[in-house]
Amino acid sequence: MNGAGALIKTLVDSGVTTCFMNPGTSEMHFVAALDEVPEMHSILALFEGVATGAADGYARMTGKPAATLLHLGPGLGNGIANLHNARRAHSPLVNIVGDHATYHHQYDAPLESDVKSLAMNVSGWFQSSTTPDEVALHAAQAVRASYGPPGQVATLLLPADLAWSQASGSAKPLEVPPRPKVSAEKIKEIAQVLESGEPTALIVGGNVLRLQGLELASAVSKKSGAKLLAETFPARLERGSGIPPVERLGYLAEFVVAQLSGIKHIILVDAKAPVSFFAYPNQPSDLVPEGATLHTLSELGHDAIGALSELGDMIGASEPILLNREIPGKPTGSLNAEKLAAAIASTMIEDLIISDESNTGGIFIAGATAGGPPHDVLTLTGGAIGQGMPVATGAAVGAKGRRVLSLQADGSALYTFQSLWTQAREGLDVTTVILDNRRYAILEMELSRVGAGSPGPIALGMLDISNPDMNFLELAKGLGVPATRAETAEELSDAISKSYATEGPHLIHAVLPEGIGY
Amino acid sequence: MNGAGALIKTLVDSGVTTCFMNPGTSEMHFVAALDEVPEMHSILALFEGVATGAADGYARMTGKPAATLLHLGPGLGNGIANLHNARRAHSPLVNIVGDHATYHHQYDAPLESDVKSLAMNVSGWFQSSTTPDEVALHAAQAVRASYGPPGQVATLLLPADLAWSQASGSAKPLEVPPRPKVSAEKIKEIAQVLESGEPTALIVGGNVLRLQGLELASAVSKKSGAKLLAETFPARLERGSGIPPVERLGYLAEFVVAQLSGIKHIILVDAKAPVSFFAYPNQPSDLVPEGATLHTLSELGHDAIGALSELGDMIGASEPILLNREIPGKPTGSLNAEKLAAAIASTMIEDLIISDESNTGGIFIAGATAGGPPHDVLTLTGGAIGQGMPVATGAAVGAKGRRVLSLQADGSALYTFQSLWTQAREGLDVTTVILDNRRYAILEMELSRVGAGSPGPIALGMLDISNPDMNFLELAKGLGVPATRAETAEELSDAISKSYATEGPHLIHAVLPEGIGY
Repeated sequence: MNGAGALIKTLVDSGVTTCFMNPGTSEMHFVAALDEVPEMHSILALFEGVATGAADGYARMTGKPAATLLHLGPGLGNGIANLHNARRAHSPLVNIVGDHATYHHQYDAPLESDVKSLAMNVSGWFQSSTTPDEVALHAAQAVRASYGPPGQVATLLLPADLAWSQASGSAKPLEVPPRPKVSAEKIKEIAQVLESGEPTALIVGGNVLRLQGLELASAVSKKSGAKLLAETFPARLERGSGIPPVERLGYLAEFVVAQLSGIKHIILVDAKAPVSFFAYPNQPSDLVPEGATLHTLSELGHDAIGALSELGDMIGASEPILLNREIPGKPTGSLNAEKLAAAIASTMIEDLIISDESNTGGIFIAGATAGGPPHDVLTLTGGAIGQGMPVATGAAVGAKGRRVLSLQADGSALYTFQSLWTQAREGLDVTTVILDNRRYAILEMELSRVGAGSPGPIALGMLDISNPDMNFLELAKGLGVPATRAETAEELSDAISKSYATEGPHLIHAVLPEGIGY
Repeated sequence: MNGAGALIKTLVDSGVTTCFMNPGTSEMHFVAALDEVPEMHSILALFEGVATGAADGYARMTGKPAATLLHLGPGLGNGIANLHNARRAHSPLVNIVGDHATYHHQYDAPLESDVKSLAMNVSGWFQSSTTPDEVALHAAQAVRASYGPPGQVATLLLPADLAWSQASGSAKPLEVPPRPKVSAEKIKEIAQVLESGEPTALIVGGNVLRLQGLELASAVSKKSGAKLLAETFPARLERGSGIPPVERLGYLAEFVVAQLSGIKHIILVDAKAPVSFFAYPNQPSDLVPEGATLHTLSELGHDAIGALSELGDMIGASEPILLNREIPGKPTGSLNAEKLAAAIASTMIEDLIISDESNTGGIFIAGATAGGPPHDVLTLTGGAIGQGMPVATGAAVGAKGRRVLSLQADGSALYTFQSLWTQAREGLDVTTVILDNRRYAILEMELSRVGAGSPGPIALGMLDISNPDMNFLELAKGLGVPATRAETAEELSDAISKSYATEGPHLIHAVLPEGIGY
């Protein structure tokens, strides 16, 4: 067994059984070794950003890491944006980057670059092996490290000569560290805040946004009167009828200011203090209201569920608020953002997974789908666009048997559109809806919000993607995915329902009014 | 005038009049300021790798930098692979990366990351401004730094608050440093080597690969009997009838070993010593033959032309060898790699610019086109695939009036396919030929060369991109570029000639036999 074989065997023994890859020459021994360890499910991507985003989506749905296999610095570079999103999602991810042979660096061959500097941008753990026997050991360490807590990107640099050299065998899986417990004093302190009667907000994130956590948090909120809020961009949020509702903090600073108006105490539960996504002239970046006190019940990655449970017991919380089923009627007529939302909500099926990169065109979707059948929403955690379609791809791999709805704004669709090819190749049940308003509409809005004055024709031209218009039907078919165009609400509802009833991927091109369509 | 306006004005005053961009919210003041400085030609890309590769292609054809405008760490990440290629091409490039406001970093907002660590992977010069007035000064410095010599990527981080704050005005252009002269002693030393009568190779690169340099180098070679060779992947090589021919060093180590067999002296002229592209088990990385002595006439970026001129005078060199026009006849019948090469060669027009990422399918093209009309070839300098189409795009912008032929292997076509949209938007005269063999054929070859044994079905599956087959016609049309399919040599020749006679971009899908088609 060579170093590559020992690596793959160690990954599989450690529970990492899926690898999203885009390999090159320096990874050929890894690829060749795949046949020795058939338990590893290898999934090819045409572009590295698809592989890294898919690993993120897989982790969000399974709670465990997938591996990626990338080719040297440039391959890692192509994967950086979605590794950034994975880092912000706290997704466990084992990021394997093939490198030149250890002795080859000195020659500064064309593909040579400082891979470590790139990796450090996104990795909570980094290691580069120096002997063949270290490779398997480092693989086991990488898997453990990826779990954090909180989850993180663990990057392992695999020099080609260590991959091809004989190794003494695979390494034993390492135990994953448990989430640190929250102290009884801390819980008592928070209970006192809740019992103070002062206006309080409970901001929850991470795994509190799954059913159990939401039930606990909702019960605490109901009993104490604290306002329950979720972080702005959750990695995974369970919602729908029968699940406690939670209002997400807004993307725009002015919305958050309104949401937290009058609040005197903010309690963070596996979430960070609210800050503005971008800085704006004469606007605060720190969105904690003046005079309010920040408290942390549970740090990121700590045992928030346990803490909420104890906290609930302490203050006598009992039942959570559960949402009733409430689904909008089927919309009719030519599409706009509201009807698009209603079409999506009225066609929902049980256990849908929504990968949401709908941006401006999708503004009404969260509201319309709130009372629909139970579903998961995966959001753009790190703000690096081009996440939605890869995450949808990986979620479909990780949650086989569930349908994924990939809501994709047109402006960010072309970053990682190659995802469709992997969806077709793997026969994944992904319905992609392109929200086409022919604009970087969010930038039109931001251009006005940043106080840049009234934009001239050159500036506006840089936000206009209608010249030429993209034909998403042709693009989808070009990558092997059948596609349908929808100009009316009826066409959209019909196309969505048909896709849900048909195995494999489908793309629907939803034509919205130009610009910010609401 | 705000910081952004001062920056753009300084760029334009310094001769940087083209900006390839994919901006986000933190770049909105830059975008808004574009209307104040209409001399700046702003070109939008749907993906950052298109913008960075286009800036590289622009620099190769004009000898001067374009600017790029990217959005924070993830935007830079998406542009890294082609910045890597630009670095290897020694292309001058002013890489502007928008960043959060200086005071916003402390809040660790979702898009926050260590941008500098990414930038250092590719940048020969890096600066982050800290006051609005520094911005313009740094811009002038960035332009100067980008010229090197040799040319390099100069990255300027532009915090949003400095872009939007009032600045005292633009900065004066700085003088570009001249190429250092080569000493008379050095030239004399090299003359003695050439006059020793021992087998000698003259390896030329950089701007020696343009007409004047090739004439001088060829004359030296002819007079001295030294073997004239070019670096493996030139940024820009002039070739064709009436131009001195130069043999490029091979991509495969075993080819280079043959090319340098028996050589006792290697003289480097604006080129690096030959090394293997990748490391292979039991193969040398250093390809300088044992016992041969390395000499350097001119370091990278030094005045190689001046040195060659003096060297030629010293040894009494006179006339270069000029190639006669010799064009293959038009091929007929179903396509293969040889007929594809003949079709390309037999349809060549004067002053064609070839952006070559044809890889395995293009193996015969260099030979077939050698005696064609004078043309430029731009090659994959850094080995990061996904360069060909962006470089073609930027070359067409930089050399308006000349036709660009973008030779693109199918496997690497989908990295930066979004280039087509920018070509359509700008009406660029680019003919793209997709060489479709449904394989990462180069990896099939490498898999056998790295001694990874006989590959199993899983490994082979990772090199097979025929499931599903990509439909390049649909993909091109989806991005607004008309397209034609060619299965025979006649169809290919006809489609190429028609595209040359028609303004704007066109894509031709050339269907080759599967796998390594020769």
